Amino acid sequence: MIVSISDPDDPRISAYRDVRERDLVGRQGRFMAEGEVVLRLLASHLNAHGRTAQGHRLLSLLVSEGQADRLADIIGALPPQLPVHVAGQQVMDRIVGFPIHRGILALGEARPAVEAGTLLDRLGPRALVVAVAGITNHDNMGGIFRNAAAFGADLVLLDHASCDPLYRKAIRVSVGASLIVPFARLADVSAMMAALEAAQTSVVALSPSGRETLSSFTPPPRVAALFGTEGPGLPAHVLATARTLAIPMAPGFDSLNVATTSGIVLHHLAGV
Amino acid sequence: MIVSISDPDDPRISAYRDVRERDLVGRQGRFMAEGEVVLRLLASHLNAHGRTAQGHRLLSLLVSEGQADRLADIIGALPPQLPVHVAGQQVMDRIVGFPIHRGILALGEARPAVEAGTLLDRLGPRALVVAVAGITNHDNMGGIFRNAAAFGADLVLLDHASCDPLYRKAIRVSVGASLIVPFARLADVSAMMAALEAAQTSVVALSPSGRETLSSFTPPPRVAALFGTEGPGLPAHVLATARTLAIPMAPGFDSLNVATTSGIVLHHLAGV
Repeated sequence: MIVSISDPDDPRISAYRDVRERDLVGRQGRFMAEGEVVLRLLASHLNAHGRTAQGHRLLSLLVSEGQADRLADIIGALPPQLPVHVAGQQVMDRIVGFPIHRGILALGEARPAVEAGTLLDRLGPRALVVAVAGITNHDNMGGIFRNAAAFGADLVLLDHASCDPLYRKAIRVSVGASLIVPFARLADVSAMMAALEAAQTSVVALSPSGRETLSSFTPPPRVAALFGTEGPGLPAHVLATARTLAIPMAPGFDSLNVATTSGIVLHHLAGV
Repeated sequence: MIVSISDPDDPRISAYRDVRERDLVGRQGRFMAEGEVVLRLLASHLNAHGRTAQGHRLLSLLVSEGQADRLADIIGALPPQLPVHVAGQQVMDRIVGFPIHRGILALGEARPAVEAGTLLDRLGPRALVVAVAGITNHDNMGGIFRNAAAFGADLVLLDHASCDPLYRKAIRVSVGASLIVPFARLADVSAMMAALEAAQTSVVALSPSGRETLSSFTPPPRVAALFGTEGPGLPAHVLATARTLAIPMAPGFDSLNVATTSGIVLHHLAGV
């Protein structure tokens, strides 16, 4: 349903106003997705009610006049009652408080939080799980979800210290992956390890001080890879008790980005 | 040599003023490195004349009063005539035009450009080369250098369309790696492939449409991995003639970041 907007203060697009500020305050379960690639991915995962398999719901779009034609195929395939607001670029810039380069915004409603146990119960006989602790950087969170989607991970577990995968920047960096890969939160690393053990899923913890190398590790059918922050890494009690894997690096430069590390690890564990 | 600075207009620190603008205009062969980790790496690679093995030269430091004590070990080991400017945080913020979070800046002089052939001639019987084309994003460039350093790559080749690895943000994202990994430019992919062939180094081109998978590829002793941009990828004539490798991904999400891809590929080629 195309809705032309010519007034930045039009109440029908109030949810889009001042996107940047909205990111910083409570977002009441809403998410904002940007750009054509993400919108195409999201649209391809919607059922007739505008919901993804994860239960996220697309509420409306806001696109610039220049983009509406390019997106005609997506717009035509959306549920007919879904509002597609079309505005001139200048109105659009004023609506969202800063220029949106690609002129495409999607507003959605995130599904309520899901229990980790519920998602773990759904894993099949072969499963690949990503577990992260203390990932507070949205670039890294987005990168981890992008890699999780690329290598077919079934589930991402987060501790409470990690940031929100549905924050606008994390969605953008993930190229939409954080909207399609299931995730759930547990309190901390100990809770994640206990839940994974209860779900008969082997945990390997990545650490520069790991006792085995990644490339020497043959993954079992159900495996979870646990990643900590780049600086402090995983807690000592975890590294003391978990099976630990290292990625050997050149002397004097023992440093990989955590999202890159997740890509290297998931590539190996996926066995592709 | 500690130099206390209390006036943002002090001519002795004119090179640090308005760092952001300087990044955008010609930088006359200068580079700017930020933060303790990068400074420690750079300092550990300096000879008695303040030069790295690549020929980059450290000209001076600018550190906030709060950081000078923490960096005493580095400062003490620098060539004694090298100026270390110490300023209060407020003066520092005014000097550089925006807040430098960690209060540490290093100004250097980049070595003159080196011929790719000169660096290729120095490769040993085992060598790992990274070649990139059309990488215009400094985050990606920094990430590629970080991975090159982590996996002991001997050399990075860039085409003329790629951005400067010594741009401030690229140095920061590389965690200093772009200051220590040798690199050289050639005009384009064809020139890189010709130079690598002349140097008896096998080239593999990464592409989602690659004819072999990365994991099935056994690297020869001297190997170069060629990466294009995320969107358009490498030119068709290159993919038609080169040996091509793919990283298989999940259906419906055929997307990896190019820096992450370089990490996965270098991890495999390094054989660690």
